[in-house]
Amino acid sequence: MQTLWDDRYALRTYSMKGSAIRELLKFTQMPDVISFAGGMPAPEIFPVEEFKEACIRVLDAHGPEALQYGTTEGYLPLREMISRHTNQYGIKVTADNIMITNGSQQALDLLGKIFINPGDRILVESPTYLGALQAWNTYNAQYITVPSDGDGIQVDKLEMALRAGPKFMYILPNFQNPTGVTIPLERRQKLVELADQYGVPIIEDDPYGQLRFEGKHLPTLEYLDDQLYGNNGNYHGNVVYLSTFSKILAPGIRLAWVVATPEIIQKLVMAKQGADLHTSTFNQIVAYEVSRQGFLDKHIKRIIDVYRERRDIMLEELEKNMPEGVTWTKPSGGLFLWALLPEQCNSQELLKIAVEQKVAFVPGNAFFPNGGGDNTMRLNFSNSQPDMIRIGIKRLAQAIKSSIC
Amino acid sequence: MQTLWDDRYALRTYSMKGSAIRELLKFTQMPDVISFAGGMPAPEIFPVEEFKEACIRVLDAHGPEALQYGTTEGYLPLREMISRHTNQYGIKVTADNIMITNGSQQALDLLGKIFINPGDRILVESPTYLGALQAWNTYNAQYITVPSDGDGIQVDKLEMALRAGPKFMYILPNFQNPTGVTIPLERRQKLVELADQYGVPIIEDDPYGQLRFEGKHLPTLEYLDDQLYGNNGNYHGNVVYLSTFSKILAPGIRLAWVVATPEIIQKLVMAKQGADLHTSTFNQIVAYEVSRQGFLDKHIKRIIDVYRERRDIMLEELEKNMPEGVTWTKPSGGLFLWALLPEQCNSQELLKIAVEQKVAFVPGNAFFPNGGGDNTMRLNFSNSQPDMIRIGIKRLAQAIKSSIC
Repeated sequence: MQTLWDDRYALRTYSMKGSAIRELLKFTQMPDVISFAGGMPAPEIFPVEEFKEACIRVLDAHGPEALQYGTTEGYLPLREMISRHTNQYGIKVTADNIMITNGSQQALDLLGKIFINPGDRILVESPTYLGALQAWNTYNAQYITVPSDGDGIQVDKLEMALRAGPKFMYILPNFQNPTGVTIPLERRQKLVELADQYGVPIIEDDPYGQLRFEGKHLPTLEYLDDQLYGNNGNYHGNVVYLSTFSKILAPGIRLAWVVATPEIIQKLVMAKQGADLHTSTFNQIVAYEVSRQGFLDKHIKRIIDVYRERRDIMLEELEKNMPEGVTWTKPSGGLFLWALLPEQCNSQELLKIAVEQKVAFVPGNAFFPNGGGDNTMRLNFSNSQPDMIRIGIKRLAQAIKSSIC
Repeated sequence: MQTLWDDRYALRTYSMKGSAIRELLKFTQMPDVISFAGGMPAPEIFPVEEFKEACIRVLDAHGPEALQYGTTEGYLPLREMISRHTNQYGIKVTADNIMITNGSQQALDLLGKIFINPGDRILVESPTYLGALQAWNTYNAQYITVPSDGDGIQVDKLEMALRAGPKFMYILPNFQNPTGVTIPLERRQKLVELADQYGVPIIEDDPYGQLRFEGKHLPTLEYLDDQLYGNNGNYHGNVVYLSTFSKILAPGIRLAWVVATPEIIQKLVMAKQGADLHTSTFNQIVAYEVSRQGFLDKHIKRIIDVYRERRDIMLEELEKNMPEGVTWTKPSGGLFLWALLPEQCNSQELLKIAVEQKVAFVPGNAFFPNGGGDNTMRLNFSNSQPDMIRIGIKRLAQAIKSSIC
């Protein structure tokens, strides 16, 4: 259809691309395809009954308030709960350091809005989370990439990248999306030290940190920065920290949070006022009701048990079925693992064959902002039940064997 | 606190201002202040019981789906319901023409994102909705203003403004925020004709159109454009139409919609993917459950009865109490009326005196993008119960009489 709008799009729309991942969700909706694409939690363990009881309690006790406009910062008791949760990890913040967003995706968008001028360079791990690239492409960001290995970002290659003058670093330290790898303590310390030395602040994106299957919780970059450079270990402010209810409660309620200085929170609030006024009051009060009194801790244990089993089965099946030359990461938590095909293989080509075999994954190249990764793929294990993982990995192995690579 | 972030804000943050209205919400939270500021619906008539029943039904029947990630366009049955509702007014659209947003504020933001380059001029009524200015200031828009009178935008002054080459027009035809006035049919027709003649598309923002207290529903600009220029009266696409559940159901669920061509919807979807992935699945399914089977029509009648009474009381009290030289609009619907003080009066100064007298309003100057309106004020009648309106207007009249003006 031709309209007067056709030649009026803003320049920035030319850097917006549809999400490869969301296009792939089409495959996940075909009932006979086993999908390791997407990044969805296991819906069969959503706390549906607890939500129902919370909705009833909230509407009985606070109905009019829950359905009315709310503040842009977010529901105060929820922000206080998040600050107490954050305090447990030794980070000294209050509700004034916290803003609620519609999923971490909105936090990434608003941070882009307040910090990125066209052409600004952002330092990212390569590969990195696709959603951040999508958010920041809109602001015409450019990317300085630092490659990662089985221990995450290679900090020995960080200094050269920092010298290029990035506006900030974007780091996912725990069970990274897409690779599933975790940055060890030593690298975290080095990272925070280099950030200070070169004067480059950090956005730490941690949606999966609570979903650790084994081993010990590692201190966040935020904590390390406070310990090293904060006044008496107080919140130092050079690390902006993001986390979310999407993976520990439910993504359909679109609730996440930002931890930052009150100054940054104030700028984010102004940006959010123009972007959507505030996040659903109802969802915030319901999430608060569901989460309080220790339910969340119990529920996270259950999620961990389910996802650990699924990861184990996926690793076991990969071991049993994959042809020689295929390798993969062994994540200690989260939702994803990452597989490498032999150099000459192209995972985008492979996807076409795989879908014919009724199995899907995300080709890894989309996670490399400056190109590369054509022989890589992201596999999600949280959203498929054990039997489906067994069948799906066999199909995938078959597809790899039957492909030209 | 000094951090590495301090000197890194994007240029666009300098055109972001805190919302005067939201700052004023502070006053509304003091329990002894009667507030005609804000633009909140009457919480005492929110359909709390219907929400509770809908939450129970949704979680019993579709729990896992309601709590899972959803599509960026929005929940299909809700979009289909909105398209049927739109069809009732003679506008021939389908679900492909509709996207769900987090309130109309997000629609304004996303439209700004896909259409506004820095320095683009947007044609607006003067005064106009402050939230649109807030959204578009972020994209460094400029404004061409056309003054309005008791019949809305003065179309005889439109041609000169259209010759200045605006990217689009932004019009609120029904019970406008802030003035409460409605554009009559003749002006609507002229507006659509001039838009076609000068090749300037229209964003029609209609949050209050359903809340008409008396008289006949007037055709939307969208409908008139389709009738005049659409192929066989089909959707023509030059008018992008916005409406919302905030005023007819509840604002706390943050649900609104855009009607546009599939091409524009696709661009909005890409922008929304980067902005927050999608609107709460849970809220969309619950709103669908609450709204279907005719409940919404019944509920809107109830809202109209309540708001009509409040408007009547406010008009009556203004008549009885206001000193000579003060005039006001007499809206046939919506949430607001608009008062003009004598020329020499400044409503920002008056607010300070009014708050001492325990009554609040929004000074009108904030609604004039290029200045002016210092002697104007917006009064909300939806959010105060009859007795409070009686007392509040008396206090306001007292404040005006005791002020220097």
